[in-house]
Amino acid sequence: MYNFRTDLANERTEIYKKMNNQQDNIDGIETQDENINDQIKVERVKIINENGVKAIGKPVGNYITIDIKNLKIAREEEISNAAKTLTNELRILVKEHINNQDDVLVVGLGNKSVTPDALGPKVVNEIDITRHLLKYVPQYVKEGARPVSAIAPGVLGTTGIETQEILKGIIDNVKPKLLIVIDALASRSINRISSTIQLSDTGIVPGAGVGNARKELSKQSLGIPVIAIGVPTVVELATLVSDGIDIFIDRLQEKAESNEFLNNLQKEDKYEEVKEALNVGEYNMIVTPKEIDDLILNMSSVVARGINFAIQD
Amino acid sequence: MYNFRTDLANERTEIYKKMNNQQDNIDGIETQDENINDQIKVERVKIINENGVKAIGKPVGNYITIDIKNLKIAREEEISNAAKTLTNELRILVKEHINNQDDVLVVGLGNKSVTPDALGPKVVNEIDITRHLLKYVPQYVKEGARPVSAIAPGVLGTTGIETQEILKGIIDNVKPKLLIVIDALASRSINRISSTIQLSDTGIVPGAGVGNARKELSKQSLGIPVIAIGVPTVVELATLVSDGIDIFIDRLQEKAESNEFLNNLQKEDKYEEVKEALNVGEYNMIVTPKEIDDLILNMSSVVARGINFAIQD
Amino acid sequence: MYNFRTDLANERTEIYKKMNNQQDNIDGIETQDENINDQIKVERVKIINENGVKAIGKPVGNYITIDIKNLKIAREEEISNAAKTLTNELRILVKEHINNQDDVLVVGLGNKSVTPDALGPKVVNEIDITRHLLKYVPQYVKEGARPVSAIAPGVLGTTGIETQEILKGIIDNVKPKLLIVIDALASRSINRISSTIQLSDTGIVPGAGVGNARKELSKQSLGIPVIAIGVPTVVELATLVSDGIDIFIDRLQEKAESNEFLNNLQKEDKYEEVKEALNVGEYNMIVTPKEIDDLILNMSSVVARGINFAIQD
Amino acid sequence: MYNFRTDLANERTEIYKKMNNQQDNIDGIETQDENINDQIKVERVKIINENGVKAIGKPVGNYITIDIKNLKIAREEEISNAAKTLTNELRILVKEHINNQDDVLVVGLGNKSVTPDALGPKVVNEIDITRHLLKYVPQYVKEGARPVSAIAPGVLGTTGIETQEILKGIIDNVKPKLLIVIDALASRSINRISSTIQLSDTGIVPGAGVGNARKELSKQSLGIPVIAIGVPTVVELATLVSDGIDIFIDRLQEKAESNEFLNNLQKEDKYEEVKEALNVGEYNMIVTPKEIDDLILNMSSVVARGINFAIQD
Repeated sequence: MYNFRTDLANERTEIYKKMNNQQDNIDGIETQDENINDQIKVERVKIINENGVKAIGKPVGNYITIDIKNLKIAREEEISNAAKTLTNELRILVKEHINNQDDVLVVGLGNKSVTPDALGPKVVNEIDITRHLLKYVPQYVKEGARPVSAIAPGVLGTTGIETQEILKGIIDNVKPKLLIVIDALASRSINRISSTIQLSDTGIVPGAGVGNARKELSKQSLGIPVIAIGVPTVVELATLVSDGIDIFIDRLQEKAESNEFLNNLQKEDKYEEVKEALNVGEYNMIVTPKEIDDLILNMSSVVARGINFAIQD
Repeated sequence: MYNFRTDLANERTEIYKKMNNQQDNIDGIETQDENINDQIKVERVKIINENGVKAIGKPVGNYITIDIKNLKIAREEEISNAAKTLTNELRILVKEHINNQDDVLVVGLGNKSVTPDALGPKVVNEIDITRHLLKYVPQYVKEGARPVSAIAPGVLGTTGIETQEILKGIIDNVKPKLLIVIDALASRSINRISSTIQLSDTGIVPGAGVGNARKELSKQSLGIPVIAIGVPTVVELATLVSDGIDIFIDRLQEKAESNEFLNNLQKEDKYEEVKEALNVGEYNMIVTPKEIDDLILNMSSVVARGINFAIQD
Repeated sequence: MYNFRTDLANERTEIYKKMNNQQDNIDGIETQDENINDQIKVERVKIINENGVKAIGKPVGNYITIDIKNLKIAREEEISNAAKTLTNELRILVKEHINNQDDVLVVGLGNKSVTPDALGPKVVNEIDITRHLLKYVPQYVKEGARPVSAIAPGVLGTTGIETQEILKGIIDNVKPKLLIVIDALASRSINRISSTIQLSDTGIVPGAGVGNARKELSKQSLGIPVIAIGVPTVVELATLVSDGIDIFIDRLQEKAESNEFLNNLQKEDKYEEVKEALNVGEYNMIVTPKEIDDLILNMSSVVARGINFAIQD
Repeated sequence: MYNFRTDLANERTEIYKKMNNQQDNIDGIETQDENINDQIKVERVKIINENGVKAIGKPVGNYITIDIKNLKIAREEEISNAAKTLTNELRILVKEHINNQDDVLVVGLGNKSVTPDALGPKVVNEIDITRHLLKYVPQYVKEGARPVSAIAPGVLGTTGIETQEILKGIIDNVKPKLLIVIDALASRSINRISSTIQLSDTGIVPGAGVGNARKELSKQSLGIPVIAIGVPTVVELATLVSDGIDIFIDRLQEKAESNEFLNNLQKEDKYEEVKEALNVGEYNMIVTPKEIDDLILNMSSVVARGINFAIQD
């Protein structure tokens, strides 16, 4: 499979089509776009069979991408609109998998002490928890409320325990019917950083966004359906430099200043060589907007509200 | 049993002796004091039988209290000395229960978003984790290192899940041989706030320090020994006001200005009435030093270093 | 003057009337109450002459108290209503002192590292700053916008410089026409904590809320009018214990169980003795709700929005 | 002048020599290297006349670069050694400009809410302040102590006021004899991020490190000598991509696969074109290690301790 260097299904679909000079839909993949308003756009990708799986390397299921412009400077109204869009899309996915009063566990992946990785734990802080109230003081909860619990289990580097192991144990004891998992993702494109939300019902691989892929969280590994909400918050430096060189060779070709050797180079992956040459050393370098702290704050508001309204009618 | 309004075994021992006008040791309780230096004092209380249990309402086991003066303004040297004292006491307790290379899980109780309750999560952040390294890259770990993992599971109010339920599941999957649990405690005395560390090997009731007692974490409930490290970070307001009135009546008695009615009053618990009269309302009022943020920082350094050295020789 | 142990003009007015068994208005003081809705109440106190000044120990000027119920659990709607109430009251005060396009400097007093003292710096973070835009890129600012700047100067204990000295220098260079100063206050009543906003146009003494009164910020000392926005976030422990004892003696008197000595005691100030007896020691003990972190967050949203709308039409 | 894209004097010296194929010292610039230990290296650059100024575009004065390896994983001992090295270098600079008991004002530039820009405010939090003690309670201060004050004035974007304007006013009132200014810098090299400290006595331009150069702080503009302590915490994305392409062309040349056009390209600045092509858009993209939060913590400890010991003997 091609090294897409992105987790987003719609980005992979675009790259696949461009690489194959294909205009129409890929076999096995249904896509649908909707402009909610000037600021918000929804792209739905549905992988329906193995052809689709092979094409873009993602399992059968639903992938919904919500794009929000200018989230950095968003005010209350735009944050509220973005949250409503997430609520609408998420509600449909939830209803596909569980009933109205089934127990939901919300899981915020990521390391709360690393700003661009802290989205999951921040969202968990804002989730309206009802499970303990329904158990101990049901009179304080609106009738018909669904039991909701939430946890931020930390990352392997700070706990020493695979997230999968932690969640397996909790699921055995709490017995939720559905997991909603929030995580930071890596994107290929700077433009997507903290302005995109990807929803899917096929699970997630924790830490993929910050260079440390772990054991997957999915129905297969955990026994209950897993809806993942992923938000790109970083681009890996090496990816970006590699892209920069691609663009550079493209320009040379346009000006007919390229040569055989350069043209061949572009077809290979110059990732490792550039990484080494830039002397990135022991650090895992990431690219973020300077305003990442504010973006994460706004985005966690959008995601938390989107979930709160989607799981309680 | 008397309402001691303190979790500290040595405070309870003192109160019991004072109430019973007793000078010598309580039957079933052994005590030993040691001055480490001008700043640090260690008091060891060992409850050896049911008489001791009845007297102060704590289970059979070891209770060690370390007092550190002036921690608010502590410099590197004092923090280091305090950590060494904790290491020495903790190492003995650990060796009583497990072998050199047995797996240890460190648990930081409390809510990281509530300053005086954030000690546990802050300590977890500074624990040297080795379990994942021993599993995936053992060549990077010093020979003979013990597998250590750590988690901050949150509190019932933010997760909707009893801490006991979360830990049971993790223990089933990770299979540690010992739990070291850190929590914020309530103290009766303002002087103890964030200058005292209580160690015990009899488990802990999470949230007791901030007015929300939960299901206990102990060998009985979890199947493995539990060493608790408790640090008083708050005094409940109602406790303090009640104490203030006790002191006030004592002064009146000294000046022979008290009366029969007042003397009887003092034997009862005026807690509820005062609480109501001060109109504390829906809030759970706590008393802390204004410098609580700095104290918690210094204390979490002491506890984390104390643990790190005690569990790896 | 009586030791009111509160900074709030309306609390002082009540205490004065109670102490003098007075039902009607105090000479030199005009008061007016308004219920905005079920949750929000406004009390306006206007001191118009020296009689009023003498009675409650506050300078001639306007004192407006806004009470907000249940701010801890406030949702977007209530926060928005509370902010609108502040906007309406503040706008009137601002118009009394300066013109539409006059320069305003917003000052957030307090120590951002001490939770209950961090309100001022948090509000400053959310103020819409326009002064630099009007100077460097006026095309990006709405026509008719007022130049607004903001600063959180820190506290004497962390800067070594009196806030007055810092502000004098900045005023000399920036030349604003009005100062809006936000600070944490001490209240006598637990109920007021982070649910009350006091507005006045007579200046402020920084740090009065947390036991360290500094040089006043006022038209007299700084040369320009100063509107102060004060929010009670703590009660001093000694105040509360003293109140507890007062209440206790009141109850005894009701039950006719008091005596001559007790009755005399109540007329004096038992503050120091109790403080000493409780062994508060070197710490400056404060009383706050356990939920202070959330309360401060909600309150800083209310105050920042209230200011932003009041100073730009 | 060549666009060096780095603020570090020693980096500029290296680049200048490389560009001019020069082995020996540049006229007007004296350099001296010292290895303190395995981990720490000091490079001293002294610009002594206009030839030096012209060569590397920095004013006459002292520039000292301290390099610290592995600061991310530094333990107490290494942090302490790094701080001592800073103390030694800083003490010499301070003595060149003021006397033993002259007043010093420490200024932490940067925005405390933007992680890689928060170094200055974090250092200020740890400076030992004595000015107010010497003024109000001199009996509590060691004899011979120097008056030290400190402030974190914020950045233009959050205050609306030029840092220079704020400091001018404070200097007029506080009348210090020396300013020590701490700021985050941009570096050309990823390796330098948060592992390098540059000291100089020629002042600083705030915000240069994060793309918003402001009015300079120097003896010329403020009337008192200014020692700047700069720490590179970010690399601008465009710089890095540009470097990546340079390296890429270098490799092509080594393999004799380059051409005339490419060789010419390399002599120009491809910065803007690449920036545009990567579609960086409205965001100011920065490159940091994922571990930036920890690095900033360790570095602020090093800088604060280094200053505290250097300014009080």
